[in-house]
Parts: sequence; structure tokens; C-alpha cells
Amino acid sequence: MKSLIIVSHPSIETSLNQQFFKEAAKSLDVTWHHLEKCYPDGEIELEKELALLNAHDRIIFQFPFYWYSAPAYLKVWQDTVLEHATKVLKQKELGIVLTTGVSEKEYQAGGKEEYTISEFLRPFQRIAHKFDMTFLPPFVMAQFMYQTEEKKWERLIAYQQYLTLEGQATLANRIDWFIKQLRDNSSLREKDQVKQEHIIEYLSSKKEELEDLTFTLRELKG
Amino acid sequence: MKSLIIVSHPSIETSLNQQFFKEAAKSLDVTWHHLEKCYPDGEIELEKELALLNAHDRIIFQFPFYWYSAPAYLKVWQDTVLEHATKVLKQKELGIVLTTGVSEKEYQAGGKEEYTISEFLRPFQRIAHKFDMTFLPPFVMAQFMYQTEEKKWERLIAYQQYLTLEGQATLANRIDWFIKQLRDNSSLREKDQVKQEHIIEYLSSKKEELEDLTFTLRELKG
Repeated sequence: MKSLIIVSHPSIETSLNQQFFKEAAKSLDVTWHHLEKCYPDGEIELEKELALLNAHDRIIFQFPFYWYSAPAYLKVWQDTVLEHATKVLKQKELGIVLTTGVSEKEYQAGGKEEYTISEFLRPFQRIAHKFDMTFLPPFVMAQFMYQTEEKKWERLIAYQQYLTLEGQATLANRIDWFIKQLRDNSSLREKDQVKQEHIIEYLSSKKEELEDLTFTLRELKG
Repeated sequence: MKSLIIVSHPSIETSLNQQFFKEAAKSLDVTWHHLEKCYPDGEIELEKELALLNAHDRIIFQFPFYWYSAPAYLKVWQDTVLEHATKVLKQKELGIVLTTGVSEKEYQAGGKEEYTISEFLRPFQRIAHKFDMTFLPPFVMAQFMYQTEEKKWERLIAYQQYLTLEGQATLANRIDWFIKQLRDNSSLREKDQVKQEHIIEYLSSKKEELEDLTFTLRELKG
């Protein structure tokens, strides 16, 4: 399972969100594909795009919400590529990584933004279904700059999992994913490697217990 | 009340829909503004657009449905113009003239297109509300080429009314509109002018009766 991140952002250098995402994606086996950078003259190469789509299993559109939709460049990409993409997209996954300056709770009936993010994303959801793709729940990063350091780290892991986690985002799957990430990280000093092995062992042994506990907590919260 | 029709269509010469619309708009006091033709180099002039918006009361986005949204060029226009348009749009009207190759009844739960056109247009509806504009029910022209001549004429009148009718599209308002159109048409020969006066007289005298009748018919149909 390999992910292609199709990023559309006209001024990516000034975006803390996108810098954060790029950093988080670096250590993973994913392809970062920034449209505005790749095609500064505005001419999208159809064959190149189809080859990229063909080589990946999870396609992700990553963009800031511009007027309740993607920036114009991603629409150019859609209008150019999609009509030729039936074969290369069939039965793959489509994800959306969305950034917004507005709090997520404003996207509801009675909120400042009136409609849910799901409602605004109907065109993307329909595109996924049209190509017989699985539409993943969107990953929404709202008001990144106002978050605490701890929350930012949490979001970093969640983003990395959105890019690479196979199957549903259950706790067990997420723990397995975390263990794999620790194992793949071979840059630690010897002392840290021992610590790491302990963490992996602990997580592995407690996986079922942790999942039961999470379930119970959720039930208790109602 | 004057309407600005902001058309986005990358190959307008081959579009029967758009030719039909253009012809229908010709005899009316409206502004036809085709983005791709006006800015072939892709550079939208902000000041020019703001002046156009400022000079009109009903703003209409007219486009074919491309991937459940407007063609990329209209998104370029939105991303360029809207953030500067708060003053010039406030309390005006926003309408959508949409063409689609798919029958309108496919746009529903269980239909081939899954979601309603209203759901796909949420981003536009939200833009209207954000600028304190009235969002008009969209004018949808589905499968134009398959329609009978009679139906096409009906749609021509409906489109003209969508561009210029003030207030709600009640039968009384539409009759008044029709009478005004007949009066404004001074190109008829003398014989035809007499006929025309008869029609106007008849419509005027029967207006209330016609409206009652329409209401009764609607009630009978349930």
C-alpha cells in the first residue's frame, strides 16, 4: 500500500500546516506531489499524472479550504486528468487532507459555516464513488497554529497514520502501526534501542488489554 | 435590477447549451461575461471584475457541471476576486445556471449521481450566505439536446425569467414579465402589433383567474 499526496497550495512556503505535513511525511514511504511547484507554468502533464496514480494505491488530495472547495489548481488537475483516469483509479482509496483556519465545530447547522465538512466535500465523495474507489473519512486540521505542542504531536502521528495505516483506524491497528514505525527507525543509539525494545514489547503484550480498556472508557462516556 | 452572467466554459463554441443561452440573453438588458474569452491569457483583472460586480444586482455563475463543480476557470475567478468582494456583493442575489448531460432525476439518493444538485452546490450556497446575498434556486438545464422544440422554447422563456424576473417566480409575476417583454418588443409589423395588444389585454384581464386556476390544478394533483 503506497500513498500519493497530491498537494495544492499556491503559497506553500508561508503555510505552517503544509510545512508540518511535509516534515511528517518525510520519514514515510509516500510520494509528496505539490502541483503548483511541479508545474509552475500551469501546464499539467497528463501522462506523468496517470503514471503517478497508477503507481499508488491510496490517493490523497491535500489542500487548504478555499471558498469551501480546493484551490483552483487542484480543479485544473481534476478537469485535466480525471476523464482519463478510470483504469488507474479503480478500486483504490481516496482521502482528503483539509486545513482550515476556522474551528471544526463551526461546520454544522447553526455554526458560523452552516454546513458540515462532509456536505462541502460531496463532489469529492461522488468522484470517489464514480471511480469505484473507497472514500476515506477526511483528515481535518483546523486552526493548527492555536494548538498545544502536545496536540501537535498527536496530530502528527494521526496524519502519518492517515497516510499509511492499512485497514480501519482501530486501536489495535494503530498500535501495530506504531510498533512497525519504531522497528523501522534504526537511527537510535544503542541505549535508546533497548528502551525502544521495551516499549515495543509492552505495547505488543498489552494490545488487547488496551483495546478493551479504550472500549470500556468509550462506553462509560456514553 | 440588472444581471451579470459570469460564464465559465472552456470550449463554448461547441456547446449547444451556451449558444442557446447567449441567444436568449441577447434581447435582454443583461451583461454576458465569458471568463475564458475575456482573459485568454489566464490573468484575471481584479479591478475590472469588482467594477462589474458593483454595477449589477443579480450575479449569476453559469457553467457546465465538471466533476460536480464549476470548471477550473471559475474557481480561479473565485480565488482571485471573492476575498475583495465583500462590499460589492453585499445583499445582492446569487444565481447558478447549470448544464448537465445527465438527467436531473439521477441527482438523488439511489440515483446514478447519488446526491442532489443542492448538495453539490453547498459551497456556492455558503458563499452567497457569507456575503449576505440571497441564493436563488439554481436553474438546471439537463440534457438539452434531447428536448423537444416546444420544451426548448419553454426553457428559453424560463431562462430569460431567471435572468430578469424580480421577486418570486409566481404566475402573476411571470405574466407581468411576459407582458413587459411583449411591450418592449417594438420590431413587429403593424398587423402583428394588433395581435400583440390583444394577447396583452387578454393576459392582463385573466391574470388573477389564471393564477387561481393554476393553484387549483396544483391542489388537484396533490
